[in-house]
Amino acid sequence: MTCQWLNQLAPGAIPAVGVEARLTHVFSLEDTRAFAQLSGDNNPLHVDAEFARKVAAKSKPLVQGLLSASLFAAIFGRTVPGAVYVKQDLSWRHPLLVDEEVTARIRVTKVSRRFVECETVCTKGSDDVVVVDGYAMLLLPSVTT
Amino acid sequence: MTCQWLNQLAPGAIPAVGVEARLTHVFSLEDTRAFAQLSGDNNPLHVDAEFARKVAAKSKPLVQGLLSASLFAAIFGRTVPGAVYVKQDLSWRHPLLVDEEVTARIRVTKVSRRFVECETVCTKGSDDVVVVDGYAMLLLPSVTT
Repeated sequence: MTCQWLNQLAPGAIPAVGVEARLTHVFSLEDTRAFAQLSGDNNPLHVDAEFARKVAAKSKPLVQGLLSASLFAAIFGRTVPGAVYVKQDLSWRHPLLVDEEVTARIRVTKVSRRFVECETVCTKGSDDVVVVDGYAMLLLPSVTT
Repeated sequence: MTCQWLNQLAPGAIPAVGVEARLTHVFSLEDTRAFAQLSGDNNPLHVDAEFARKVAAKSKPLVQGLLSASLFAAIFGRTVPGAVYVKQDLSWRHPLLVDEEVTARIRVTKVSRRFVECETVCTKGSDDVVVVDGYAMLLLPSVTT
């Protein structure tokens, strides 16, 4: 998993308005099962292929919504160590299935002191089907790392 | 981890306006490390006690924001199999540290056909410090499970 800052932001640098980054990943069935264990969310949609086929008419289990959204946090966590979430609004548009490639993108829209606001979107497939989109606000660390 | 529906909602039943549920849990350092692996978010705030002490002045690493919020999904996943997220808005108010007990609560505010809207809040400690709060919309399965 490699995080690519499209504007060549150096690790530890403060993002500026207009900076974009993206991260591409594939979640496996083992990942959704591990997250089900961690979170306590044992919804069979995420871990049981037969249930996903019957209830959601999908060929494979669905990746948990907050697991797909965690790629936004990964972009920040990998490049701005110490940044913490203040807000994240999420709207899921299409299901993401296990073994499907997903790309998370963030674009910085506002920087106010240590607060950074971003547009956030995850897409899948070559036709850029939106899986989840929304808005994030992060607080940057006051101590240089 | 036991999910308690305060109004005795039976597993698989459709929630009604006013129904409340809660779930209490403690995330360990092993949990935050596992989630860091799963999500790719290797922000040292969540896995490195020395970094958390230096940068955030906290005695222990912070639980990832989306991991604490996953308890909302767990409440639904454990009692309404097949429910999927449509929206989740999240505002983090106070850090949750590893080994701290946290309680997630949801309260159903609107039901429209298969869409259920809820207030969502996680608190910690006896003084009910709000860790994260917000709003969720879920889509219930059309097939009875």
